[in-house]
Amino acid sequence: MLKDFLVAPGPTPVPSEVLLEMAMPVYHHRTPRFSRVFRETLELLQYVYQTRNDVFILASSGTGAMESAVVNTLSAGDRVIVIRGGKFGERWGEIAEAYGVLPIYIDVEWGQTASPQQVEALLKENPDVKAVFTQYSETSTGVVYDIKGISEVVNRTEALMVVDGITGLGVSPCPTDDWGIDILVCGSQKSLMLPPGLGFLSFSEKAWKAYESSSLPKFYFNLKAEKKAQANDTTAWTPATTLIIGLHKALSMVKEEGLENVHKRHAFIAEAVRSGVQSLGLELFASPPADSVTSVKVPEGIDGGKIPKLMRDKYGVAIAGGQAHVKGKIFRIGHLGYIDKTDLAVVFQALEFSLAELGHKFEWGVSQKAIQEKLYAEYKNYPIR
Amino acid sequence: MLKDFLVAPGPTPVPSEVLLEMAMPVYHHRTPRFSRVFRETLELLQYVYQTRNDVFILASSGTGAMESAVVNTLSAGDRVIVIRGGKFGERWGEIAEAYGVLPIYIDVEWGQTASPQQVEALLKENPDVKAVFTQYSETSTGVVYDIKGISEVVNRTEALMVVDGITGLGVSPCPTDDWGIDILVCGSQKSLMLPPGLGFLSFSEKAWKAYESSSLPKFYFNLKAEKKAQANDTTAWTPATTLIIGLHKALSMVKEEGLENVHKRHAFIAEAVRSGVQSLGLELFASPPADSVTSVKVPEGIDGGKIPKLMRDKYGVAIAGGQAHVKGKIFRIGHLGYIDKTDLAVVFQALEFSLAELGHKFEWGVSQKAIQEKLYAEYKNYPIR
Repeated sequence: MLKDFLVAPGPTPVPSEVLLEMAMPVYHHRTPRFSRVFRETLELLQYVYQTRNDVFILASSGTGAMESAVVNTLSAGDRVIVIRGGKFGERWGEIAEAYGVLPIYIDVEWGQTASPQQVEALLKENPDVKAVFTQYSETSTGVVYDIKGISEVVNRTEALMVVDGITGLGVSPCPTDDWGIDILVCGSQKSLMLPPGLGFLSFSEKAWKAYESSSLPKFYFNLKAEKKAQANDTTAWTPATTLIIGLHKALSMVKEEGLENVHKRHAFIAEAVRSGVQSLGLELFASPPADSVTSVKVPEGIDGGKIPKLMRDKYGVAIAGGQAHVKGKIFRIGHLGYIDKTDLAVVFQALEFSLAELGHKFEWGVSQKAIQEKLYAEYKNYPIR
Repeated sequence: MLKDFLVAPGPTPVPSEVLLEMAMPVYHHRTPRFSRVFRETLELLQYVYQTRNDVFILASSGTGAMESAVVNTLSAGDRVIVIRGGKFGERWGEIAEAYGVLPIYIDVEWGQTASPQQVEALLKENPDVKAVFTQYSETSTGVVYDIKGISEVVNRTEALMVVDGITGLGVSPCPTDDWGIDILVCGSQKSLMLPPGLGFLSFSEKAWKAYESSSLPKFYFNLKAEKKAQANDTTAWTPATTLIIGLHKALSMVKEEGLENVHKRHAFIAEAVRSGVQSLGLELFASPPADSVTSVKVPEGIDGGKIPKLMRDKYGVAIAGGQAHVKGKIFRIGHLGYIDKTDLAVVFQALEFSLAELGHKFEWGVSQKAIQEKLYAEYKNYPIR
């Protein structure tokens, strides 16, 4: 017997309550029954987004929602700023270039961050820039960007502030309206506790203004068609009904826990993970680190690819390795979504087993000690259920 | 208590075996475990498509797969022929026009079909046409087109033969390679017995040649990226894993039944439905009728919108009404996918109840008599399980 645990930066574990909701008999989507669920789900999504802007649910992965942000606001030849500090920053650039949009890149060393000042300077040099594209949390490096600060400088211009919040939203505070984020993209398989298959995005008034002058071709991802359909509590194309029904359940769980508590939980879980990692003599890769995923430098002399492989295939705990040029040099522990303190005991047990097997020196249980100290400080004050 | 039945032309009922498979704990998609399922699923899809061409699974609705067929083969300004005999023929045209492709329409009266001769004549007049777009079964009218005949005339030219088989594939024979279909589009929520959320398409060598000269912008739906990923048994973007795991199960059920038997079952179930409908003094709308969906003219003096509403909301049997200008004038019974003889007893009970309530005259049970005669001729020779 080998029990499987999923602690990757996405997909993330899905609660049984949600999985079973999605296993209920399928019903038609053009019915009052589905429309009620759909409308409530949009409202729950607005709650998590902290927005009054339109929000959209697409039958696509997060990448489809990213593409939607581009094609609904821009025209070929438009210039945009792209913060490129990892695989997903690169993706913003690739989508833009595929559509003839011209990115000006802020190239950030993987594991490092970009500052609002850099964005501000570039915006001043290039007053024709139509939008700034960034991540909230760059999943490939584990870095968190200062979205509040960057939004502030972008909001002083005509440019749109477009954020990939795929591993940021539902993890750390990201008040769309307060911070002035015009488009915030998310995906289902991260903090929102669903399987992959849905993409989300919010769309501000300023984004709708950009829509009017945008000439990029679009059909499946045309948000005007979705907006028109939403006025009748439905979707333009056939919605992925079971996933939306699951989303309704998952977001109801988020609302019941309370968004503020969800953020707090992610913060102290992440702090415990960082503390556990460091207790083993390992170094963090990201600066500043996100609360969604902790990326860790592989210690000298250890074959970095073997850590996630041993953890998953021998000890049943699926974390992620590094991607592209940091492959084998870092590993990444995901701790977003349906992750509780108990998951950390499992992670660090498997990590200690794997590191020991690969010859890394440490005292058995040292990481459990570290995380328990952090977690107990939090949990000792909790009421008995 | 009101038991719910789904006999719409999509979504269709999903077997519990498939629903529960999708309710299993989520695991990571970049793993040998998922790659095995993905590879086998592609092979099962090729079995159902009867093709050796590439097949692709997209996280999108069927409309996304239709868009993918357009953007991967054409350039702005290209001329194409579109058979427009219903809502989905219109959709081919709308997608083409959204991308600056210039459709030449064959406008077919709703409920009627287009002939290979019409397509042939138009191809001769317009030798520069790059592709012919059609449906196999036009879901909005219930008509089946002669894809074998149309493919024959298209295959004599340089044009691509592009078929929306969303309610055709897995219902009636559609041998992709034998008939020379370059692109065959399908969706998950029809005969393939899954919830909505996946789009499929096959892509021939001739289609790949067209890809090379196509200049329409594409990213999320770029099939070259998918082909490259498939070489490593994975997908370009995060796949909708639970739906693909369900697809693996559903297609395994299709293979176990045998594709030929699946087609036979759809044929005699459809024949029984048509016979039941006519026994009630009702007229068929489609000529020739598809084996996926039976569209029926609303009899004089009856409010057509009330038939599906009564059936669903009072008697628990969800069929579909007419769309666009035939709204209220026809209703549509779906009988594709996970549909057995027993479902027909349920449909005609609810239909008799509803018609009686609306004042239509007939003898109680006349439609049950009609379908049982047809079905018994088939089933009396079946072995005991």
